[in-house]
Amino acid sequence: MNMSESLSKEYMLRAIELAKKGKGRTNPNPLVGAVIVKNEKIIGQGWHHAYGDLHAEREALKDCYQKGENPEGATIYVTLEPCCHFGKQPPCTQAILESKIAHVVVGSRDPNPLVHGKGNAFLREHGILVDEDFLREECDQLNPIFFHYISSKMPYVALKYAMTLDGKIATKTGESKWISGEKSRQFVHQLRNRYAGILAGIGTVLKDDPMLNCRLQDENGQMTGRNPVRIICDSDLSIPLESKIVKSAGEIQTIVACLAPADSQKKALLEREGVEVLEVKGGNRHGLLAKAKTMVQNNPKPQVNLYELMKILGEKKIDSLLIEGGGAINFSALEAKIVQKIYAFVSPKIFGGVAKSPVGGEGVSLPDQAFGFKIEKVSQIGEDVLLELEANN
Amino acid sequence: MNMSESLSKEYMLRAIELAKKGKGRTNPNPLVGAVIVKNEKIIGQGWHHAYGDLHAEREALKDCYQKGENPEGATIYVTLEPCCHFGKQPPCTQAILESKIAHVVVGSRDPNPLVHGKGNAFLREHGILVDEDFLREECDQLNPIFFHYISSKMPYVALKYAMTLDGKIATKTGESKWISGEKSRQFVHQLRNRYAGILAGIGTVLKDDPMLNCRLQDENGQMTGRNPVRIICDSDLSIPLESKIVKSAGEIQTIVACLAPADSQKKALLEREGVEVLEVKGGNRHGLLAKAKTMVQNNPKPQVNLYELMKILGEKKIDSLLIEGGGAINFSALEAKIVQKIYAFVSPKIFGGVAKSPVGGEGVSLPDQAFGFKIEKVSQIGEDVLLELEANN
Repeated sequence: MNMSESLSKEYMLRAIELAKKGKGRTNPNPLVGAVIVKNEKIIGQGWHHAYGDLHAEREALKDCYQKGENPEGATIYVTLEPCCHFGKQPPCTQAILESKIAHVVVGSRDPNPLVHGKGNAFLREHGILVDEDFLREECDQLNPIFFHYISSKMPYVALKYAMTLDGKIATKTGESKWISGEKSRQFVHQLRNRYAGILAGIGTVLKDDPMLNCRLQDENGQMTGRNPVRIICDSDLSIPLESKIVKSAGEIQTIVACLAPADSQKKALLEREGVEVLEVKGGNRHGLLAKAKTMVQNNPKPQVNLYELMKILGEKKIDSLLIEGGGAINFSALEAKIVQKIYAFVSPKIFGGVAKSPVGGEGVSLPDQAFGFKIEKVSQIGEDVLLELEANN
Repeated sequence: MNMSESLSKEYMLRAIELAKKGKGRTNPNPLVGAVIVKNEKIIGQGWHHAYGDLHAEREALKDCYQKGENPEGATIYVTLEPCCHFGKQPPCTQAILESKIAHVVVGSRDPNPLVHGKGNAFLREHGILVDEDFLREECDQLNPIFFHYISSKMPYVALKYAMTLDGKIATKTGESKWISGEKSRQFVHQLRNRYAGILAGIGTVLKDDPMLNCRLQDENGQMTGRNPVRIICDSDLSIPLESKIVKSAGEIQTIVACLAPADSQKKALLEREGVEVLEVKGGNRHGLLAKAKTMVQNNPKPQVNLYELMKILGEKKIDSLLIEGGGAINFSALEAKIVQKIYAFVSPKIFGGVAKSPVGGEGVSLPDQAFGFKIEKVSQIGEDVLLELEANN
């Protein structure tokens, strides 16, 4: 790598760091950072602060002008292809053109197939030198949810579970309070704050009667989190009207997904409580027929087709979903190939015996058929270990 | 911390680093390091290189004399209390006395109750200033096996297992080749090289017919490892004469532990192949009577009492034992409270279904009754994660 390449890398890494400052506030927009450089000097920098605010390129230009610098002939490093369409903001390509910037270095291309490459093409047509895919992987990593959602139109799905050191989510008698430590349980609320939706199966509701809300607090005990939309998979609408989820459906957006057609009376009762009932067509992912035999063996009832459900949730602008279910729903999600990420908390305790594991369902017969993931990050949270994994694509 | 304390700490940390240079070669002696300091200058340093070689204090004195330095009036930092008895070497306390060193700073005390504190007392009686327990925890950490073995007279026991991300050691059909990646499997041979013994249950022998040897190789494919003594728990001597373990018992030391009294004919047949048959009294740890009910439910056969077995192995100078068994023996070992350490490999793949987990047996009913451990180290080995834990004492 020569001197100028190494400098370029430094500028883009700086743009990436700037982008991260918008974390948690730009949703559903991506994190973007930009750095303007002239004669090896940074003359302007900026990032997209929050949804509805200026885009990173305009922030960097604003910074440049405020410092009395002239961007004419400069290079801009931007983590994402500049937009060329009118959204909440006029297109950034226009702002770049007006600024007389001479060179644009782009990290990620726009994942939206409608605009993919168009921003770069527009700039080139207007005589600007454009370098694409510079540190693209690092830039893509800034916005995994955004990239997945824009390109697949389905939510980015993460499984979250906590297990013992011997792989159990409960003792042999079904007791599970608690597997993980307090710090891990607090961290889960940060995840709930970050994901647009949370999904659990009816089994979890019947067993634990959970709220599935976000209980983040500041130092003064004030609730500071945002509740994810709660989605319950409940094929035949057996959720009790007196469950906490239904009782709080007036305050927290709640969806119950069942098999179509729903029992109209049950549906009406739930709707009266503020629950949105989604009727999902088809049974398991591969259709009722192919699965008939195994379903009879393992699952007497057909289940909501998770792949179909993801398509519907995507249409409802739910860009990310945290699954906090039991072993059955976790296996269904893996089988439906909708899982992008896993958060596995491992607690340093051992239950022994024959007890439930985090992924159940039908299971695979041969090790080669396993669902494969890649370890992305390992951290200690209190006394536990958190393994973060991403799907092998 | 004042200047001189901070310097002292630096010297002892250096002694600890020196001690580590003997790793793998001093067994059954401990790792020990020593640094001699005079007028804030290190005038000699040394460590115990290998079993039978000079002790660290003598190495440091030798280094000092070779450099033409005079240790008179100096301070020696030594990670372990100097010995005062004649072993393979004359006592180090004598050498310190002769050198006219004025001040001895000691990390760990000798864990052997027969000599504990005696070295320090001898030095004091001869007018030498002795500081004890300096960075003791760090120094103790150098020799967990040594400390455990000397004080309990039983081997330091580690469980090793590899499980999937969903806590399984096999698929639902019992297939387990392979759970962990190649690098993890190589690492296991380093463990086998480090531990004096390896223990498995008869179930593992019948299922996998393993060698349980150490297959470490250098770059030229030469075997470089040391085989641990193989110990098979086999209550009624049902190990097949044609198993690899028995067939290789002439070359690799092999013990089969069974319930006393052993079938004399079977015993004689095994002994003819070079197997040592150990007859262990009593059934499960808490005695046959108390366990009768659960044993009938879960284990139709009484099992070798692991606690008793550890006492016998301790007498046989086996100071450390790696258990590579299945869920049943792992649970028995935990229940017998003999486990000091766990090596849990977690592979980033998911099997799902109902399958075996790393710890089976009777299991606990309530989360509060779990066997508790503390995470000591987390590392990535190839595509896997290795969790190293120590018992909560």
